[in-house]
Amino acid sequence: MKEYKLALIGFGNVGQAFARLLLDKNTELQYRYSTKAKVTAIATDSHGKAINLDGIDLEKALEIMSSGRSLDELSTAPAPSDMTEFIKTSGADAMFETTPVSYKDGQPAISHIEAALENGMHAFTANKGPVVHDFRRLYAMAVNNGLKFYFESTVMDGAPVFGVFRELPAVNVTGIWGVLNSTTNLVLTRMEEGDSFDEAIKYAQEIGIAETDPSGDLHGWDAAIKISAKITVLMDHPFIPDFVERKGIEDITPEMIAEAKTQNKRYKLVAHAWKEGNKVKATVKPELVGTDSILYNISGTTSIAQFESDVLGKLSIIEDDPSPHTTAYGLLADFINAVRN
Amino acid sequence: MKEYKLALIGFGNVGQAFARLLLDKNTELQYRYSTKAKVTAIATDSHGKAINLDGIDLEKALEIMSSGRSLDELSTAPAPSDMTEFIKTSGADAMFETTPVSYKDGQPAISHIEAALENGMHAFTANKGPVVHDFRRLYAMAVNNGLKFYFESTVMDGAPVFGVFRELPAVNVTGIWGVLNSTTNLVLTRMEEGDSFDEAIKYAQEIGIAETDPSGDLHGWDAAIKISAKITVLMDHPFIPDFVERKGIEDITPEMIAEAKTQNKRYKLVAHAWKEGNKVKATVKPELVGTDSILYNISGTTSIAQFESDVLGKLSIIEDDPSPHTTAYGLLADFINAVRN
Repeated sequence: MKEYKLALIGFGNVGQAFARLLLDKNTELQYRYSTKAKVTAIATDSHGKAINLDGIDLEKALEIMSSGRSLDELSTAPAPSDMTEFIKTSGADAMFETTPVSYKDGQPAISHIEAALENGMHAFTANKGPVVHDFRRLYAMAVNNGLKFYFESTVMDGAPVFGVFRELPAVNVTGIWGVLNSTTNLVLTRMEEGDSFDEAIKYAQEIGIAETDPSGDLHGWDAAIKISAKITVLMDHPFIPDFVERKGIEDITPEMIAEAKTQNKRYKLVAHAWKEGNKVKATVKPELVGTDSILYNISGTTSIAQFESDVLGKLSIIEDDPSPHTTAYGLLADFINAVRN
Repeated sequence: MKEYKLALIGFGNVGQAFARLLLDKNTELQYRYSTKAKVTAIATDSHGKAINLDGIDLEKALEIMSSGRSLDELSTAPAPSDMTEFIKTSGADAMFETTPVSYKDGQPAISHIEAALENGMHAFTANKGPVVHDFRRLYAMAVNNGLKFYFESTVMDGAPVFGVFRELPAVNVTGIWGVLNSTTNLVLTRMEEGDSFDEAIKYAQEIGIAETDPSGDLHGWDAAIKISAKITVLMDHPFIPDFVERKGIEDITPEMIAEAKTQNKRYKLVAHAWKEGNKVKATVKPELVGTDSILYNISGTTSIAQFESDVLGKLSIIEDDPSPHTTAYGLLADFINAVRN
């Protein structure tokens, strides 16, 4: 039985779902993977920080969050206010980064991952920023320190779009397609069912898919950063969202959707990346698809990633019903995959 | 650089495609995986056998097969006629089993795999028989001998339906769906386009998808053995094709397909497995699906596998354009995955 100390940096929907999953899977981790995990540090932006080397009571931490109190009351040791100091002080073996994404530079998540890797911790993140803005350096840091840097949850929640390629050696990915953003896809589906643009966004916010400011989704930034992450890692070609020729769904009107419907067609926000010589090009833009496209049936919050390569026909991965729980599972899978060999 | 000696048992379409892939990927294997592979033994049923410990010239072997001659001329050592003796004598480090499937008992492939594992060779197979009829024992043999027994190509050619679950730890699969048989799916698609049943089968045979005797496909045996393999491995529940409630596409008439078309529906041969208490139930049968089912767009030789589990929403994997080359890639992936750690 190996025991690991975990530090959770960020404790929002995903961080809390991860804590719940750790509680649920505690026994299974022990008997299937001979692994014990205890959370010794949790840091939030506005609900305090806690360090307890004996293990933080996760039930209590979740209760504190739901009541809006501060995690400070769980701390048995001084918790540095500076986040990189906090990570260092946590003495953890594995750090889980779930802070909000920065499309522009990937900070402060990059510093968190750096701090983890410099202090002997595996680093796992649900945050796309570090992957598109600093993948090669962080990956090299991890390898040099004999640690793992995994980020399965960044692009399709728990669906193993990166993991699957660890099982596909000697594959050269030549093209990627996808419907990668749940908010826009849900908004388009709701509009097909009669919602106005604003009603559809409101619905997406109510069920916790869209953020208070949904512009990153609607203008295609989220899809752009996701396709950039895939290009960077799976095509081994550093790529940032600014390189993506990008158009969101902001100009799609109810009239356009109704008109498409009469032709049995639907609008989808499609991300596409392909090779042109030594370069990679990428677009994110609304496309009309008919009933004979697999994309036609990617509705609501469902997403799809498709890959073309030199050795397989087109390979597609579809995820239905994503939620903070499936994102949390991606982090758990990263952790077990990192430590079990 | 590690060097491996390979034995190919079976050298039909898949075996030959694997030989071609080894030639194509030879350099990549060396620089990306520090692995050299040379084929030292090839056995066929009716085109002779060859053993050459210095490495068989694969170009020459492929030329001999296409000219219909015997591989005996390439042998530099006596090649035992008994197959298990042959495997033992080959002195290989890895054995690749691509003989035709036996739905009923998985032989002689099981003996081939046994012979390999007993003689210190990793065993890889594209043959479903051993997986449904003897998975647990063969897997235990491999583990006990510090060897690998992988079979990625058995169910969906090169698409990593088994491999992906190596990346999904602590998942408990509760349900599986799929359109798993290319021949029946192609036949149904061709009939939608106006072919008669016989014309559609003839076409499937011409493009090398259907066998001379396609009854195993048409009556649902192939789909039944594939869903059984998935149940056995991914639900950890031994299951044989006889347990599957099975109906093929033999009673689907052009009239039924035309009638379905007027309602924008299509027939699909759907495999389904689910838990009932401690038991697993499975069916293979034709189902009518509409444009709002993802199965509607699984046309021609495309296949899909869908998984329901305790931690993810529904996860689907789709493979387009399968061929002996993609099946061969599944074997190569198995080999690299087995030896690279």
